[in-house]
Amino acid sequence: MTLLNQVWNEKENQQQSDAWTNAESSANVFQSSPSEAEIASWLVARLAELLELDPDEINLQQDLTDYGLSSVDAVNLSGDLENFLGRRLSPTIVWEYPTVEELSQYLSSDNSEEEPSTKELLNPSSLLDGNHQQLDTADTFSTHSEIPEEYYRFELYPEYRQIQQQQEEIQSLGLGNPFFTPQEGIVNNTTRVGGRELIDYANYNYVGMCGDPKVSQAAKEAIDRYGTSVCASRLLSGERPIHRELEREIADFIGTEDSIVYVGGHATNVTTISHLFGRNDLILHDALSHNSVVQGSLFSGASLIAFPHNDWQTLDRLLQERRHRYRRVLIAIEGVYSADGDIPDLPKFIEVKKRHQAWLTIDEAHSIGVLGASGRGIGELYDVDRADVELWMGTLSKSFASCGGYIAGSKALVEYLKYTSPGFLFSVGISPPNAAAPLAAIRVLKAEPERVKLLQERSQLFLELATKHNLNTGMSKGSPVIPIIVGDSLKSIQLSQNLFHRGINVPFMIYPSVPQNAARLRFFINCTHTEEQIRSTVDILADEYQKLSEQTD
Amino acid sequence: MTLLNQVWNEKENQQQSDAWTNAESSANVFQSSPSEAEIASWLVARLAELLELDPDEINLQQDLTDYGLSSVDAVNLSGDLENFLGRRLSPTIVWEYPTVEELSQYLSSDNSEEEPSTKELLNPSSLLDGNHQQLDTADTFSTHSEIPEEYYRFELYPEYRQIQQQQEEIQSLGLGNPFFTPQEGIVNNTTRVGGRELIDYANYNYVGMCGDPKVSQAAKEAIDRYGTSVCASRLLSGERPIHRELEREIADFIGTEDSIVYVGGHATNVTTISHLFGRNDLILHDALSHNSVVQGSLFSGASLIAFPHNDWQTLDRLLQERRHRYRRVLIAIEGVYSADGDIPDLPKFIEVKKRHQAWLTIDEAHSIGVLGASGRGIGELYDVDRADVELWMGTLSKSFASCGGYIAGSKALVEYLKYTSPGFLFSVGISPPNAAAPLAAIRVLKAEPERVKLLQERSQLFLELATKHNLNTGMSKGSPVIPIIVGDSLKSIQLSQNLFHRGINVPFMIYPSVPQNAARLRFFINCTHTEEQIRSTVDILADEYQKLSEQTD
Repeated sequence: MTLLNQVWNEKENQQQSDAWTNAESSANVFQSSPSEAEIASWLVARLAELLELDPDEINLQQDLTDYGLSSVDAVNLSGDLENFLGRRLSPTIVWEYPTVEELSQYLSSDNSEEEPSTKELLNPSSLLDGNHQQLDTADTFSTHSEIPEEYYRFELYPEYRQIQQQQEEIQSLGLGNPFFTPQEGIVNNTTRVGGRELIDYANYNYVGMCGDPKVSQAAKEAIDRYGTSVCASRLLSGERPIHRELEREIADFIGTEDSIVYVGGHATNVTTISHLFGRNDLILHDALSHNSVVQGSLFSGASLIAFPHNDWQTLDRLLQERRHRYRRVLIAIEGVYSADGDIPDLPKFIEVKKRHQAWLTIDEAHSIGVLGASGRGIGELYDVDRADVELWMGTLSKSFASCGGYIAGSKALVEYLKYTSPGFLFSVGISPPNAAAPLAAIRVLKAEPERVKLLQERSQLFLELATKHNLNTGMSKGSPVIPIIVGDSLKSIQLSQNLFHRGINVPFMIYPSVPQNAARLRFFINCTHTEEQIRSTVDILADEYQKLSEQTD
Repeated sequence: MTLLNQVWNEKENQQQSDAWTNAESSANVFQSSPSEAEIASWLVARLAELLELDPDEINLQQDLTDYGLSSVDAVNLSGDLENFLGRRLSPTIVWEYPTVEELSQYLSSDNSEEEPSTKELLNPSSLLDGNHQQLDTADTFSTHSEIPEEYYRFELYPEYRQIQQQQEEIQSLGLGNPFFTPQEGIVNNTTRVGGRELIDYANYNYVGMCGDPKVSQAAKEAIDRYGTSVCASRLLSGERPIHRELEREIADFIGTEDSIVYVGGHATNVTTISHLFGRNDLILHDALSHNSVVQGSLFSGASLIAFPHNDWQTLDRLLQERRHRYRRVLIAIEGVYSADGDIPDLPKFIEVKKRHQAWLTIDEAHSIGVLGASGRGIGELYDVDRADVELWMGTLSKSFASCGGYIAGSKALVEYLKYTSPGFLFSVGISPPNAAAPLAAIRVLKAEPERVKLLQERSQLFLELATKHNLNTGMSKGSPVIPIIVGDSLKSIQLSQNLFHRGINVPFMIYPSVPQNAARLRFFINCTHTEEQIRSTVDILADEYQKLSEQTD
């Protein structure tokens, strides 16, 4: 089936394919198909150029991501391969065959299929049939009547047609639309859908603050006091005392000098990273980083490398080789990775960033309120010096029961962002209820740290029970995010639906959000889940998993 | 004084200076200073290249913005001039001397001053003194100990030092910090600051919905029903019935098929524009467009032109010349421009966009709830076919008493954005109170259209009284945004402070947010202002303006 994230993946690739555009001139010089050795040799030469390594440093059996090949480079490499071989290739071929050896073996065998090629994806208009002129000949249009309709009629845009096709494919499964299902009330350990109550594992209400009477009361009092909006940028007349109270409380909770609050979590990463970094800079982000980090990095104009997940050794080597070529360098990691529920080795990352005079940002969306004895996040978990991380980023929509984002860090940095960060300066201030809820949530959490302990116990219980049932929980450890790796996309969707019918709401996650053959369900545990709910859930899950395996085997 | 927006202006310029980097190789070939004629000749050649015009099409007395010279191009032109002349220039010199004649006259006279040059601004590290190696020699670093401290110690970043310097300059005025002043309660026709009640003209609560009991009540009921957060992306389990109710109400109010709501207004433009457009596309935005439009356009990777304010004729000419070179084309205008309070001639823009098969987006932040007989915005004002505008963009933080943004348009477009727009897909859904408030506000506005009539009458009254007092209200007409153009920046700040002491809260706006010598106060009228408040305000304003003129003359 076509895949949800494909369209925005394409978009990112489009924006970053400059590095290899010159390679397009080196078209296929082979009269017949090249041999495996010829392909391998071409690949080594290209990769050496791309990765700035000596050709003899490239091991034919080594996974290319180990060399720091970014996802963007990988797609562009696929496009170059198309030019070289003169045939169509999947844009994700480098993921499917991740070493030079595998790739050249595959490419030298006869396996040409009709599938959308990399070039088509990078230039979606070419997906359309018909005799419209293509982009590269656009200069030949002489009158406006010749502007192709798919350049301005949205119904004809290839990316829209792709979404339509996806919808049709989902319909054809006969499972209904699994997206945008309205939940009817407050979501914590249960939810209501279509009048039915289900045990819910699809929300980020980790420490039960959404729906907590104290938190709701604080938000309602803020509405009475300030109204529902602050009606202006905080710089001008949008500032309310509650804004600074919240920012000071966040900084105190994390252990930094100050913090700044933005109206959205996604926008916090996009605007902060794109504002602080630029050309001549380098951003290295974990290969499993959130879209907001990748977008902020792309928009910054800095050079970009995705390093292999959690691999601080490769990161160290990349910096050893490259640091000196750049001005500012940012390393971007997360506190808990939301697809896998694992936690990076923060002290090692701090060691690396210090060695190379780089900055470190940690997206704590899924770790604040969750990790550490009192929920103060990954900094508390590892007891690191909070000043060793420049950007403690987090969201207000998970443990803090609101909507928004923050950057906690030095006084100087926060002051600078308040006067210059576009997504802050040119935005209204966060609304009174959205500011009051997280302020109250942090205060409740300080007063009731047992919520964090409970969350950690429940998560541990789920993980242990799932392991006992031989369910594949991947890398998850010590976090409330527990994937059940199913493998096949369709099977994952089916399992999610079957659990829904048995009273359990749990989301699936499929390619390309996760690798091919790593489609999964994701259970988000929260402290309101009872032991009984977790025990019965894992029993039902194991049962349904077993049934589905029997059906499909 | 140094200026607030300079830092982000720089940033935008950094990102877009590719076009002229090659020009740097054409260094100064003159042994002595070039004559006025030589400079003019160089300028005409460069501009012809840059604007893709014949040299003889360039009139030496014509303002360069009339040719569609973008602000980014202007700063880069200044950098090229530095290379050509071998001396430092202000990066804003093209605004200060906007014609070839003025510019070459100025540059041929002896006027070299020590000021930060364009190259320094584009490469802020060069602003620092000392013997650190510069970027262009960064390759010569051989060990990490040689990475200059200003590449990683924030306190040494030039942009941070600039903000510090600005703060010191503002302190030295003895007027206190005019920014981030906490307002203590609900802001409508009055506000409370430091325990004092002032008449307020610094908020966007145009139709009095913030603080309206029905709106506040709806937000509080939503908290009771759904809690303070929706705890997930709407695609997965963050959807609540209130989300679709709001989106349908917005679409119905504006007259489109559907709408999509984002958690922030700034992010709405950034993520939507950057997502829908890309390389091979062209975005033409009004020269006075909001930062969010410019950022979204920059991030898209499309070619970018700022056309002269409201000038649909120049826009038409630009498209006549250039449309055929691009794939998709977007024209970006606003319903009411928030610095000047004027309204574009929408039917003309629609005519132009149709002629050239372009898309049109209108940022209705300051026009929705404001223009038209019932506040349905600029579409109602001109009674245009709503399907003629692809992207009706607006914010929820002004007339709608919340925080957020929307795109209203075709069903197909909205569906596509819901499945693919990164700032929507990878964000939590808008919080229950933030969704309920605008939903209630629109319903109240439909039931009480007299609020719009009152707003329009009060605005008209303010404008008439100001004109009677010979105050310069610039281009403002038919909108609740009324600038009082003072000219000098310091005088504007002083006037704002003097009015504050007399019980009136009104923000100033200075260069570079507005052109040099066009510093101003901005009065935002709302429907809760009484006739008496407006009459007394304009009297006091005229009085203080007169006093200040006498002092400074």
